[in-house]
Amino acid sequence: MKTMKRLEIVADTVELKSILAAVDAAGAPGYTVIKDVLGKGGRGLRNADDLTDAFKNCLILVACDETVATRLVEAVRPILKRFGGICLVTDAQYVLHES
Amino acid sequence: MKTMKRLEIVADTVELKSILAAVDAAGAPGYTVIKDVLGKGGRGLRNADDLTDAFKNCLILVACDETVATRLVEAVRPILKRFGGICLVTDAQYVLHES
Amino acid sequence: MKTMKRLEIVADTVELKSILAAVDAAGAPGYTVIKDVLGKGGRGLRNADDLTDAFKNCLILVACDETVATRLVEAVRPILKRFGGICLVTDAQYVLHES
Repeated sequence: MKTMKRLEIVADTVELKSILAAVDAAGAPGYTVIKDVLGKGGRGLRNADDLTDAFKNCLILVACDETVATRLVEAVRPILKRFGGICLVTDAQYVLHES
Repeated sequence: MKTMKRLEIVADTVELKSILAAVDAAGAPGYTVIKDVLGKGGRGLRNADDLTDAFKNCLILVACDETVATRLVEAVRPILKRFGGICLVTDAQYVLHES
Repeated sequence: MKTMKRLEIVADTVELKSILAAVDAAGAPGYTVIKDVLGKGGRGLRNADDLTDAFKNCLILVACDETVATRLVEAVRPILKRFGGICLVTDAQYVLHES
């Protein structure tokens, strides 16, 4: 196993494209997206049952090394500052399995 | 970045309102909810494809400081004890971005 | 609270049955599954909006003790090696609530 950083970003779904572009630009090897999550934060309630994508949140999960994580945090911070959302970073053991 | 607690609660969707009330009462700054998750635990299989909300689970994610986390754990424990479910607490770095 | 391992596996939904069988065989007390997640990894884009289950990913969350975690990692590794996917392991505090 290899120590990596686990980044978890919750943001408005309208920002998903910008965030995934930042994930790619930071050099992350991949990502996972959970769509249609409901949230309540500093900017009010975000409901998965609302009619348009504009009111939905999504959760983006990224496993990457520390250098990529640092770049990604800096890229994501202004998006979160402008549109709301959260980013949590934890240490994780990544199960190696590539040939 | 700021060290915070990441709480993750998986419970029957019928308990969602009580749990979110506990989250608010504990003073958490916000939460994220993933609906319609499937689970198997001590109380049997819970299937996201079942017909009614009564058989669905949900996952609630909260980032908060340690004091709030301690209050929330104590508030959630009796709900989990009565209706089943799990609560996991991990340390996480929260990316600061508020003005 | 009790220190446990939190395993998070993201894999193609067609592998879900094998992975849940591995989770049960490893002796995990339960699991949570989030279906229809979108992902991009070493094997290309996996889109939650694609037409068949064959192109969907899922996320499996397991809380278990270290012995079970070690067994589960070894059981899951060949599935990930063959079909792609990731497995992250973190330390977590499990909120005890069983009578």
